[in-house]
Amino acid sequence: MNEKLLDPDNENSIRLSVSDAYDLGVDALVKIGYTPEEAGVIASHLIDASMWGYEFAGLPRILVIAERPELRKPRIPVSIVRESSISALIDGGNNVGYISLNHAVDVVIEKVRSAGVAIVGLRNSWFAGRNAYYLEKIAREGYAAIYFGSSSPTVVPPGAMRKALGTNPMAIALPGGVDPFIFDIGTASAMSGEILMKAFLGEEFHDVVGIDKRGEPTRVARDLLEGGVFPFGGHKGYGLSLAIQALGLMAGSRFRNGDVSDFGYLFVAFNPELLIPPEQFKDQMEELLAMVRGLPRRGGSSEIRIPSERGFREREIRRQQGILVNKTVVERLQQLK
Amino acid sequence: MNEKLLDPDNENSIRLSVSDAYDLGVDALVKIGYTPEEAGVIASHLIDASMWGYEFAGLPRILVIAERPELRKPRIPVSIVRESSISALIDGGNNVGYISLNHAVDVVIEKVRSAGVAIVGLRNSWFAGRNAYYLEKIAREGYAAIYFGSSSPTVVPPGAMRKALGTNPMAIALPGGVDPFIFDIGTASAMSGEILMKAFLGEEFHDVVGIDKRGEPTRVARDLLEGGVFPFGGHKGYGLSLAIQALGLMAGSRFRNGDVSDFGYLFVAFNPELLIPPEQFKDQMEELLAMVRGLPRRGGSSEIRIPSERGFREREIRRQQGILVNKTVVERLQQLK
Repeated sequence: MNEKLLDPDNENSIRLSVSDAYDLGVDALVKIGYTPEEAGVIASHLIDASMWGYEFAGLPRILVIAERPELRKPRIPVSIVRESSISALIDGGNNVGYISLNHAVDVVIEKVRSAGVAIVGLRNSWFAGRNAYYLEKIAREGYAAIYFGSSSPTVVPPGAMRKALGTNPMAIALPGGVDPFIFDIGTASAMSGEILMKAFLGEEFHDVVGIDKRGEPTRVARDLLEGGVFPFGGHKGYGLSLAIQALGLMAGSRFRNGDVSDFGYLFVAFNPELLIPPEQFKDQMEELLAMVRGLPRRGGSSEIRIPSERGFREREIRRQQGILVNKTVVERLQQLK
Repeated sequence: MNEKLLDPDNENSIRLSVSDAYDLGVDALVKIGYTPEEAGVIASHLIDASMWGYEFAGLPRILVIAERPELRKPRIPVSIVRESSISALIDGGNNVGYISLNHAVDVVIEKVRSAGVAIVGLRNSWFAGRNAYYLEKIAREGYAAIYFGSSSPTVVPPGAMRKALGTNPMAIALPGGVDPFIFDIGTASAMSGEILMKAFLGEEFHDVVGIDKRGEPTRVARDLLEGGVFPFGGHKGYGLSLAIQALGLMAGSRFRNGDVSDFGYLFVAFNPELLIPPEQFKDQMEELLAMVRGLPRRGGSSEIRIPSERGFREREIRRQQGILVNKTVVERLQQLK
């Protein structure tokens, strides 16, 4: 996908500078009801996602936000509803996650700075965006962070006939040298944003990644929306997904009418200095990554990948060259009212 | 495997009562140099593992401990080397993990009780045993725990020709109704104890789970010990394994001579009350699990599994019926000097 995005001959895409793409996003977001300041916070996140190579998590997401029922419900400012020196439970006020998670990250950083650790939950919010975006901010402060996000039913437990768990991402960020180390995965076998984008464009997945509404295995994105997606990694991935759903309940997400009804996010962050001198960790971490990168390769591999390294590289390339956005998406954004 | 263990006609096994199995374990451990008190701590863990149905993590593990080079190196009492009200770094003193992790769990529980949260690292120790054993103790106090264990090279990163990462388990435990919820996995595609046991017995795996020393895919347990095992879940499992290896460095495990040289364990535990009233969490958790258990099933599934539920059930059965131990293992334990 990344290669296709970077292909200048792709007839379906338009190349936009980062600042033009940002302006297009802000304009569209203001048209659907956000203040210019809120639109700036959201657009910064979306453009960053595009720069990392996640086209579907970039500007196209505005079209999805515009269709979400939550957008038409009342929203109030993000606020802390339960707090201690080491913890906070935050009410997202039915704001989109791009806004409320940004706020939660500020609270996390403040708590770790003053107390060494932060346990921060966020509920009553929807759409998290790219978790690595938030975790990068924490890790650049020199802190370690573990993150879990629970969401509404998308994933089908092994042996089940219908979806019951969210795509429930998990991420771990650790301070590093030039860039932090960021591990960031969804526990579904396909990303929610990718399914939405493929469904929007009428596309299929290469492999069977879930079931349709009758419980039959399928590759068709639209059918997956009605059926559900498998977890990654079989029973282990399912167990992780279920654990994350439970952690979401701990972060205050509600269980109503027999299903998980909103999103719950949990940040656990701490200052590594609690355990070892930061310089010692940094040196050992660099040695570990250098060892992995330098492993003898088999099966024609050109590189042993380190999570997030390619994303950081691609972001720098797109910062110079701009990003490619699907023409249909650009037209639809301009037509928003 | 569990069914086979419970089969009373299995000719290669002897049924022992839980207390006889415990005594056999204590005697064998004293013979290889442990005090009776230490032997009791270790044997309690091993018998519990057998009762959960993990035969290879039970008494056979004593034969593996007896062969470990660490056993012949000096050991000192487990001690805290860096501490704050919310954290501790523990030196395991080259003790086996069954002893040092038990100590770490006591520290975790004490910190969470007084401060609401605990970040506890443990280094200079080897063999963790079954992570769920430790996490169950924390969750039964009403606390939530996230656990990572890093170990010496066993797992081969995608595209690499040699092992570079540990089997690096991860576990999450949450307080529940009668029993806690415990999610506990290794991030390798096969468990270390199972590979050791199969290698000892000269057995093969059903599927290709790794490579031999020449980098060729293999199912033969002995060849896997010389080559390495794949991570579970492809690139996502690999990323998680690498993140856990890095967290192990944070917990003080050392990187020497170009490889991870010892084990590092990290506990992050907190009182859920920081975020929501415990009763509210318990009710929502029970609703979530009841919903998952009750999902319509497909493909002839007889049950939608919840992590750890079957283990708790089997433990109660074996508490009554005793455990089956491989005859060869019993003979070898009795022959230890």
